[in-house]
Amino acid sequence: MPGLLETIDSPLDLRRLPEDQLPELAREIRSLILDVISRNSGHFASSLGVVELTLALHRVFNTPRDKIIWDVGHQAYVHKIITGRREQFHTIRKKGGLSGYPRREESPYDVFGVGHASTSISAALGLATGRDLRGDDFHVVAVIGDGSMTGGMAWEAINNAGASGRDMLIVLNDNRMSISPNVGALARYFNEIITHEAYNKLKADIWDFLGKIPNMGEKVRGGISQLEKAVKSLLVPGIVFEKLGIRYFGPVNGQDIHALIQILEQIKDLKGPRLLHVYTQKGKGVPFAENDPYKWHAGGQFDPRNGEALKKSSPVSYTDVFGKTLTKLCASHPNVVGITAAMASGCGLKHLADKYPSRFFDVGIAEQHAVTFAGGLALEGTKPVVAIYSTFLQRAYDQIVHDIALQRLPVAFVLDRGGLVGDDGATHNGVFDLSYLRHIPNMVIMAPKDELEMQRMVLTLVEYNEGPVAMRYPRGCGPGAAIVEDPEALEPIEIGTWEVLAAGTEMVVLAIGSMVYPALEAAQTLREEGISIEIVNARFARPLDDRMMEELVHRHKVWVTVEENVLAGGFGSGVMEALERRGMLSSVLLNRLGIHDRFSDHGTREEVLQDEGLDVASLSDAFRLIRTKALEMKVG
Amino acid sequence: MPGLLETIDSPLDLRRLPEDQLPELAREIRSLILDVISRNSGHFASSLGVVELTLALHRVFNTPRDKIIWDVGHQAYVHKIITGRREQFHTIRKKGGLSGYPRREESPYDVFGVGHASTSISAALGLATGRDLRGDDFHVVAVIGDGSMTGGMAWEAINNAGASGRDMLIVLNDNRMSISPNVGALARYFNEIITHEAYNKLKADIWDFLGKIPNMGEKVRGGISQLEKAVKSLLVPGIVFEKLGIRYFGPVNGQDIHALIQILEQIKDLKGPRLLHVYTQKGKGVPFAENDPYKWHAGGQFDPRNGEALKKSSPVSYTDVFGKTLTKLCASHPNVVGITAAMASGCGLKHLADKYPSRFFDVGIAEQHAVTFAGGLALEGTKPVVAIYSTFLQRAYDQIVHDIALQRLPVAFVLDRGGLVGDDGATHNGVFDLSYLRHIPNMVIMAPKDELEMQRMVLTLVEYNEGPVAMRYPRGCGPGAAIVEDPEALEPIEIGTWEVLAAGTEMVVLAIGSMVYPALEAAQTLREEGISIEIVNARFARPLDDRMMEELVHRHKVWVTVEENVLAGGFGSGVMEALERRGMLSSVLLNRLGIHDRFSDHGTREEVLQDEGLDVASLSDAFRLIRTKALEMKVG
Repeated sequence: MPGLLETIDSPLDLRRLPEDQLPELAREIRSLILDVISRNSGHFASSLGVVELTLALHRVFNTPRDKIIWDVGHQAYVHKIITGRREQFHTIRKKGGLSGYPRREESPYDVFGVGHASTSISAALGLATGRDLRGDDFHVVAVIGDGSMTGGMAWEAINNAGASGRDMLIVLNDNRMSISPNVGALARYFNEIITHEAYNKLKADIWDFLGKIPNMGEKVRGGISQLEKAVKSLLVPGIVFEKLGIRYFGPVNGQDIHALIQILEQIKDLKGPRLLHVYTQKGKGVPFAENDPYKWHAGGQFDPRNGEALKKSSPVSYTDVFGKTLTKLCASHPNVVGITAAMASGCGLKHLADKYPSRFFDVGIAEQHAVTFAGGLALEGTKPVVAIYSTFLQRAYDQIVHDIALQRLPVAFVLDRGGLVGDDGATHNGVFDLSYLRHIPNMVIMAPKDELEMQRMVLTLVEYNEGPVAMRYPRGCGPGAAIVEDPEALEPIEIGTWEVLAAGTEMVVLAIGSMVYPALEAAQTLREEGISIEIVNARFARPLDDRMMEELVHRHKVWVTVEENVLAGGFGSGVMEALERRGMLSSVLLNRLGIHDRFSDHGTREEVLQDEGLDVASLSDAFRLIRTKALEMKVG
Repeated sequence: MPGLLETIDSPLDLRRLPEDQLPELAREIRSLILDVISRNSGHFASSLGVVELTLALHRVFNTPRDKIIWDVGHQAYVHKIITGRREQFHTIRKKGGLSGYPRREESPYDVFGVGHASTSISAALGLATGRDLRGDDFHVVAVIGDGSMTGGMAWEAINNAGASGRDMLIVLNDNRMSISPNVGALARYFNEIITHEAYNKLKADIWDFLGKIPNMGEKVRGGISQLEKAVKSLLVPGIVFEKLGIRYFGPVNGQDIHALIQILEQIKDLKGPRLLHVYTQKGKGVPFAENDPYKWHAGGQFDPRNGEALKKSSPVSYTDVFGKTLTKLCASHPNVVGITAAMASGCGLKHLADKYPSRFFDVGIAEQHAVTFAGGLALEGTKPVVAIYSTFLQRAYDQIVHDIALQRLPVAFVLDRGGLVGDDGATHNGVFDLSYLRHIPNMVIMAPKDELEMQRMVLTLVEYNEGPVAMRYPRGCGPGAAIVEDPEALEPIEIGTWEVLAAGTEMVVLAIGSMVYPALEAAQTLREEGISIEIVNARFARPLDDRMMEELVHRHKVWVTVEENVLAGGFGSGVMEALERRGMLSSVLLNRLGIHDRFSDHGTREEVLQDEGLDVASLSDAFRLIRTKALEMKVG
């Protein structure tokens, strides 16, 4: 028998459904998400928590004329399913398929492209302001999680929204958890509101009491009136928002679709900026996800019946090598502390957090604060290691320049997911870091070719105290180099030194980080064709190895650089700059390979690397072509 | 008769002074500031407002063992004067002299380098955390203005500080004004606290009333107890901070040194994170500055008796040309709106704000929100022009990438003070923008050579709707090109087109923005020596003029690029990248001139340009040398 969900081709169909059928629809949606995400992998628990909220919003609001902006957007799967994308939902995060995030190109229901946290209130206020300037009258709704509220720009937006008086609704989706368990004063405050069990009873009692107060004369009458206000200010649990000019409603149980519809109908047409506080359960409806929503935020493929991972014995990831190595080094380096921005697990600091809880700081989705906080720590002789995804560290670019590099503070940055991330797509690619870090004075930038080199780099960054140092590495696993149990036994790497990995006579390839092994492999292929290529592991993007470059100029006319970073301003540009500075640029024939000047689409990491010509086969072709051209030009 | 101030060589001397002499000391300090800043120029009104606060802090706290972090730091002149730098104070903001901001290299009392807003609480929490990890026990104080509280990272820090429970004091210096008059919900909230005149009376009345309430039985007793809490929560005016885990004290009159000392002594040794709300008057003690603190935030030289500017008929600045031109274009372009981050005057949008108040948005010191808010506005068909200093737009790098460029939204960015700012020094130099914007896909970047070209660029950016566009220009005045009254009559500039300004045979110089006229002038000097140089106005840093570059490759072997931006990843690197992409890199002998890989010091703009080799004389020398070398290499 066909389900209800199959009849929902747009929110119009949703609005026609009798309200008592919505719980069944919610059940079917959860089932579809479980089915698809267990096969495709992706963000899982967040969308399960907002099934009812999403249905209620699209039922009460007249989308797409009314605009809903999903903060971050990894919770928008339900939104996609009921806005005409049910049948494509199985393609989510696959090449050519739906994006894992709202995307304007994909649907008129996707109002604003998202992926990074805390942007929704700003965008919603912009929409509401544009609407008012045009004299239009649609509704604007921002749906933001409690995790995203730890990001400062949400408060910049609230400061403006509260003063603007513009009609807009902020839905605070409070699952008491961002990506990691949510710490911070704000989380406590939200929790205080929700868990105040005596709240309703107290409210009734106090109003009852106020009704019984006798008239006590003029002097007290004024006091009473003020007292009423005072009591109201307690009874409005969201006083922080109220004081900032935002009317607070709630808290309401976000799994109760009827209650949600009722309150949304009530407050929909009110004027001014409003906030509805909804509490939801991440992972709702799937027992194993309810029990460990942190683990089930996002992940790989799994058995939908019990949540068991399908790939059991995956090799150790770069993230884990970093995390475990750093944790081991903590024993011999008592001044090391780890800092992350709501990504303890994703950035590998979970190991450190477990073993040295007092030396671990999860600051929330607050990259700016993370960096400047690290600066303060460094002043006191600690060695802060700030581990943040490459794409999210973009948020702290100014703080890196101004609070760390300018003051030459010895803070280490560890950028996970440096390069193409694959299925999360353009919003999560870490393809700019070599460019945005490389022009910052005093910065040192490393990228390991494999797991063992990563271990040496972790030792290096822990012991480097002359200023900021960064290490970037790609998502997933390295080539599988054996790692050591005791990283202390390794040698740190001398800053700014490269290494020759393979001798060769016809050209030199300078490869960095994730591109070293593919370049080696491509060179090996060509060697079988009789083409001899020297391969250099250019493990420092800054400073470059000047001495080796001078030697290489004597050995090679044909140079190739390879990097998993945009070509503009990246490692290859640094090599050109260095050659130019020495007047050696016209002595060589230089070719740069890297990521093109566009925002790339999602797909597997292999697919998107291939799109950029950075897989082994493409590299082989490129090297061969460069050599042919060089021969034609009679160089090399 | 020698003044008191002459006896103050360090805070130790301050602590020895009888408290009743402090008002006289404050008067002498104001007099010194008036004297020096009227001659040197600089930030004026902010320091006048915090004379008493600074004296009280250094008297009560045991600096430098106890640490004071000044947010932004332009209010730290008094701090510098009383911490051993009185005699150098006349050198402030001059080359080789004191910096206009706290700087670690300058004094052990300058705990953290500042210059950008909203960093102090993060740094203070880092310090306090490092202290606790080491088992030390000094005090940490962050002094932050109400303006800086509009920056999101201050709230990221509060969220963490409130939950941390660490001992630290935040002094909120509330002068009801950031750099521009402070708007926003937070400013209203602070104002509500301070102006609640009935506050003390009300408090007495209500407590009186509560005392009179008879025992009304068990049921009500619980209510009463809750009611007391409710009343307390009203009577604690800083409830927003209290709810976020920060104990609130105040408000206290920041011009009353005795009250300040008393309350600081009282709360100094309390535990946990505390906030003291101090209200001060910007410009205090100097009537003309008290009357217009907005104007007197910072400025040029003036007559200390009446505040009249010494340079009366200064030519029109780039900032003004931009602001006036944009305002004129608003008439014919009804979709244009202006957005700034607390810099309406500094960024030239004051004109627009005056004429079209509903189309102007000052979002506070909130660059991140400014950019994403603009994105939301663009969705509704408006054309947002976001005008922010180059150095401060660094704060919104991620939002430009993610919320604007990735979505190809037609938002225009106008970067004032792109290049070396001079006396404000390294924290305010806008020398990275070409690098941090140039690697962002879909971005267009322009820089005008003179005022008239700027007018055409303003028209161009207003009419460009295919994605983001940026225009950067330097501080101060342009070369003085006559501007037109009606910018509508001008032609927009075709995107990605350069222009040849002077023919020449021996080499070509590609100069951008502020470097075009100096390059022309240098070439003119060399022409007199018989050296013939072609000068190109490379007005687009992205996209480059590919067609012209191909022509130039045929005409010239020797190429020079000149830019007022760091050499790493800047315009010249873009030219190299374009040549490399076309396989033309080895056809030319390319030299790049620009800003070196270091954080430069303060001085006049002329002095710092000279330090970087970017003045006319240095450029002439460089061109001559390049030509000589080329001749030796038998090219050109």
